[in-house]
Amino acid sequence: MTFSFTYTIPHSHSKARLGVLTTPHGTINTPAFIFCATKASIKGVDPVQMKKEKTQIILSNTYHLMLQPGGEVVENSGGLHKFMGWDGPMLTDSGGYQIFSLGHGSVSQEIKGRRQAQGEHRKSLVKITEDGAMFRSYTDGNKQLLTPERSIKIQKQLGADLIVVLDECTPYNVTKNYTRRSMEMSHRWAIRSLNEFNRITNGEQRLYGIVQGGVYQDLRNEGIDFVNSTKFFGHAIGGSLGATKEQMYEIVGYTAARLSTDRPIHLLGIGGIRDIFSGVKHGIDTFDCVHPTRLARHGGALVKGGSDTGREHINLRNSKYKLDKEPIEPGCDCSTCSSYSRSYLHHLLKAQELLALSLITVHNVRFMNRCLEAIREGIANGNLDEVEKEWVV
Amino acid sequence: MTFSFTYTIPHSHSKARLGVLTTPHGTINTPAFIFCATKASIKGVDPVQMKKEKTQIILSNTYHLMLQPGGEVVENSGGLHKFMGWDGPMLTDSGGYQIFSLGHGSVSQEIKGRRQAQGEHRKSLVKITEDGAMFRSYTDGNKQLLTPERSIKIQKQLGADLIVVLDECTPYNVTKNYTRRSMEMSHRWAIRSLNEFNRITNGEQRLYGIVQGGVYQDLRNEGIDFVNSTKFFGHAIGGSLGATKEQMYEIVGYTAARLSTDRPIHLLGIGGIRDIFSGVKHGIDTFDCVHPTRLARHGGALVKGGSDTGREHINLRNSKYKLDKEPIEPGCDCSTCSSYSRSYLHHLLKAQELLALSLITVHNVRFMNRCLEAIREGIANGNLDEVEKEWVV
Repeated sequence: MTFSFTYTIPHSHSKARLGVLTTPHGTINTPAFIFCATKASIKGVDPVQMKKEKTQIILSNTYHLMLQPGGEVVENSGGLHKFMGWDGPMLTDSGGYQIFSLGHGSVSQEIKGRRQAQGEHRKSLVKITEDGAMFRSYTDGNKQLLTPERSIKIQKQLGADLIVVLDECTPYNVTKNYTRRSMEMSHRWAIRSLNEFNRITNGEQRLYGIVQGGVYQDLRNEGIDFVNSTKFFGHAIGGSLGATKEQMYEIVGYTAARLSTDRPIHLLGIGGIRDIFSGVKHGIDTFDCVHPTRLARHGGALVKGGSDTGREHINLRNSKYKLDKEPIEPGCDCSTCSSYSRSYLHHLLKAQELLALSLITVHNVRFMNRCLEAIREGIANGNLDEVEKEWVV
Repeated sequence: MTFSFTYTIPHSHSKARLGVLTTPHGTINTPAFIFCATKASIKGVDPVQMKKEKTQIILSNTYHLMLQPGGEVVENSGGLHKFMGWDGPMLTDSGGYQIFSLGHGSVSQEIKGRRQAQGEHRKSLVKITEDGAMFRSYTDGNKQLLTPERSIKIQKQLGADLIVVLDECTPYNVTKNYTRRSMEMSHRWAIRSLNEFNRITNGEQRLYGIVQGGVYQDLRNEGIDFVNSTKFFGHAIGGSLGATKEQMYEIVGYTAARLSTDRPIHLLGIGGIRDIFSGVKHGIDTFDCVHPTRLARHGGALVKGGSDTGREHINLRNSKYKLDKEPIEPGCDCSTCSSYSRSYLHHLLKAQELLALSLITVHNVRFMNRCLEAIREGIANGNLDEVEKEWVV
């Protein structure tokens, strides 16, 4: 079975690279954006429409799916691809991010029902030990132990093409000492993940390691050395990326520059347009974030070059769109811009119609895919800086 | 412009008839079911998908649209067809049903947010006078007066092919005296509606009259005489149809048998499978009801011949579907049954995913269209009774 990552670095002043990531469910041209089908569904949009908007790859979250419906239910249906009707490339995460981001008290907005999240979820992390993370299920309150081995086993049941080692996700506000000890344990968890993966793999999945080290260069160096020297298929940049955009760009740049250049590099949880251009220029191949799809559900539609108020999106709830017969973005080739006006979308939002969420999500999906297409063209043509000026606010 | 209704009555023991209803936006083969796009949107399903599931005609509600976004906003977009991207035949109602059903204290479940409906909406009807109905807007609390003339004017702004006169909708629990007086006023309103229609029409719409008379045969006779002798394009059977299914079948049968046979006959607000077969056999041409689409949003999927518990639908929330890899209805050619299992739909419902509502609605839409296709074939082949046995619980 072909399952490889190849890339080229065109002549250019940046480290930006063009890649082709081959999986059993198709190839991904990188740089690429990965959309979040958190609970085995892009909220409000079916896979046929996702394909129509030229989506290359989506991801689902192990944390959510292990609790509902459970890995064995998905396996019973022949894996996530068959279960949800998506036949393209897929990634799953390890489940760690949600457990820890909730456990550390930072509210994960991805969990549906934010009020519940602040109440119940905050206390969901019971204990972290060398063995794994003990937490309470948000569906039935039962204790669950997620070990590196269990995460790999569930990710095998889910059957995504690309899967990820379990790590502890440390937030920004912990000490350097905590970051170091956490990283060292995450490295041991990563080895356990890899060993379990090698033991049970059927050859149809590939495993990503995660670079830890928080905001500290010396720790990042250790994290980089660890993943470079371990037999992972790809690398994800994890851990805290600091408190500001500038710090994030610096850490991502520092880290990406030192990672093996023969493996795909994923930047976890980043989806702003400006951030993506910065990441690409530092050599990042793939990005994922709930931002484009979640923004849509709040009435925010991404537009090239941003809005006249200096944001990356326009807010279709704004009454100035009540009589506006233009599409969200004149020139956009998405299904929504082809058929509907801002006036109609504004009405659907005011009337609390479900269709609003689907239609705006469709636009944002196509927008992200168009943006990454433009980025790939910019790399190929050596004019990425000009492309950036068109797309970034 | 062609705009006509033709029908044939095949040799058969029932009054069931096959018709073709021609509108500026296409023809409708009758008997046909009309789906409710209450606020200018089928909840969770776009027009492209509705067409794919072979939908012939949809309706929108004047009550909702006059309050949000307002008739002038829809007119600004060139009418409902352009506004919502549906280029097939459409009907709008007069706005009366919602005002009166709320005013009389019977909670209209179609209004989104049932708790709000019971609190605010019940008091929404302020006063009925000869002039029209005064009510309070649920969007801003302002008083609104809906007269026959205003209803026709708004329905012209909305621009549906088929429109309806304003009437007072009397519930089951009023006296015969009230029903008579209400009917007489509704007749005066109908004449005012028709006069206003004739005054402002551009020739692209046609007006339906409504037969009143409640559960009383002598009053029904008066209602029937009134519409038969007035120049309406079609007739809708309105008013109270009684407290039981049997009473409804009797009143519909009595009324339909006496209506002019050269005009299309619509039965307002009826959408059960058994009820549709009964109506068709009495000569009804079109039906509308929120039932198939609302049922879907509660996890109910319509199945041919009903469920093993004797209902017309199965409840996909039931845990017995957790591992069920069958489609909702084996043999159904809808997009949902072609791609998704009961197991997946059960998961989406449990996980509160928006996509569940869209996918089940798509099935129920196609189910209704398949059912009416089978009814038309049954009439053509003279074996409607056999068809009924296949479809009805």
